Amino acid sequence: MQLSFSPWFHFQLQIYYEDTDFSGVVYHPNFLKYFERAREQVIGANELKRLWHSDGIGFAVYRSELTCQEGVEFADILDVRTRFAFESKYRTVWEQEIWRENAARAAVSGRVEMVCMNSQRQLCPMPATLLEQLGTQLRA
Amino acid sequence: MQLSFSPWFHFQLQIYYEDTDFSGVVYHPNFLKYFERAREQVIGANELKRLWHSDGIGFAVYRSELTCQEGVEFADILDVRTRFAFESKYRTVWEQEIWRENAARAAVSGRVEMVCMNSQRQLCPMPATLLEQLGTQLRA
Amino acid sequence: MQLSFSPWFHFQLQIYYEDTDFSGVVYHPNFLKYFERAREQVIGANELKRLWHSDGIGFAVYRSELTCQEGVEFADILDVRTRFAFESKYRTVWEQEIWRENAARAAVSGRVEMVCMNSQRQLCPMPATLLEQLGTQLRA
Amino acid sequence: MQLSFSPWFHFQLQIYYEDTDFSGVVYHPNFLKYFERAREQVIGANELKRLWHSDGIGFAVYRSELTCQEGVEFADILDVRTRFAFESKYRTVWEQEIWRENAARAAVSGRVEMVCMNSQRQLCPMPATLLEQLGTQLRA
Repeated sequence: MQLSFSPWFHFQLQIYYEDTDFSGVVYHPNFLKYFERAREQVIGANELKRLWHSDGIGFAVYRSELTCQEGVEFADILDVRTRFAFESKYRTVWEQEIWRENAARAAVSGRVEMVCMNSQRQLCPMPATLLEQLGTQLRA
Repeated sequence: MQLSFSPWFHFQLQIYYEDTDFSGVVYHPNFLKYFERAREQVIGANELKRLWHSDGIGFAVYRSELTCQEGVEFADILDVRTRFAFESKYRTVWEQEIWRENAARAAVSGRVEMVCMNSQRQLCPMPATLLEQLGTQLRA
Repeated sequence: MQLSFSPWFHFQLQIYYEDTDFSGVVYHPNFLKYFERAREQVIGANELKRLWHSDGIGFAVYRSELTCQEGVEFADILDVRTRFAFESKYRTVWEQEIWRENAARAAVSGRVEMVCMNSQRQLCPMPATLLEQLGTQLRA
Repeated sequence: MQLSFSPWFHFQLQIYYEDTDFSGVVYHPNFLKYFERAREQVIGANELKRLWHSDGIGFAVYRSELTCQEGVEFADILDVRTRFAFESKYRTVWEQEIWRENAARAAVSGRVEMVCMNSQRQLCPMPATLLEQLGTQLRA
């Protein structure tokens, strides 16, 4: 199936001591954290909070893939690029990239698949409000 | 007030990539994580889980102090030493130290004060079962 | 000794999934991370990077204290307030607070003492460039 | 190419507050941390430390994939299962799984590809000592 992706969203972040390890570059699991922060910006942290507390609905990462082309260093300012597509009423697919300043290619790229779950951790369809909100951004 | 402390408990852990930063040693907030892991061992993770899920009761760190005398390095095996005292029915005090192998003094030492809270995050007295269980260890 | 503090600096951050734990609020060691991010903003990440790579000089946290008055939640936007004083040529003292939006008091407050170290992890005086740069901010 | 895998290695770990998020289960990037801890156990932390400090040689994760079938909870004791294969002199492939106690299938499974790098972060062949050591485990 050909997925129909949103435009790319941009999210900026800075690398701190906490992000690096003794090899001198960012510890690789942290890239999944940056991806998650960027996805929250697209959906909206307050909307995620509302869905969780009033509807008992949340997102769970079902699959993720990371490819690291280049080390990312302390004090780097990163551009996290994110786009998404609906795969079904239950599932969204996110393509994400991490760019260092003035870089010719992404330092890290990845793909994350998320499913919608209720508070009993059972698969559930995305609520209409969310479909509508994300749908608007899809056509942005 | 003179507090009456338990004997010292010992908890061992190893330092991984995830624990260090680009300066080559353990990133200092992680010491609070190791202290927390060691406290959980004293109280018991299953007891903490039971208290949370059936009674809605948890512990919150109210105050903490850390003194770092020495850097801790990748691949170090640490001995986290922990002892506690009751300060009131609401509050426990924990003295904790981190020792590297064959060291003459603690690399890190600290003190953590915890309070008991219900699920509305209101102060509550420690449940009788916990008082009894910790009391047994106090006299160990 | 009466320390002479800088004005308060402000640093804003958002709370993500990664910051919370199953009790529903921010996991307490993370507050030390936020304090560190805010200190880096005052000193400047690029200056810290330059000092480390060209002079082999870094900062190490020698002591820290945290007092947590209130839980901090997912999606919160925080104001981290930071001021510092020189205690000697080797040592700086930082007073830091974390404020939730529209709050009447700080959710978390703390004090961090940092020393200057060379690449052999020996105490060394702060370099003149740094003293001058921080000195300018002290009088800001 | 058909890879020739080692036997499965087992590594046990416990889930702490620090591992979970407010949704009540383990925050997904942490699974990459557990995989990394388990790989370090296979290679040996002291060997990794020696390679880094005396030869300037380290491992970098080039690609990773995660599939999360089930949430992992506070206080869980996990069995991290790990096996590896050489793909070339530069590259190792690791298949890893996370099992909860008494489970019928893995809660999380993944695949990690690592390359060997020198201190200038250039690709380099694995040192002979390491090839030999891992080779022994391959035939274990």
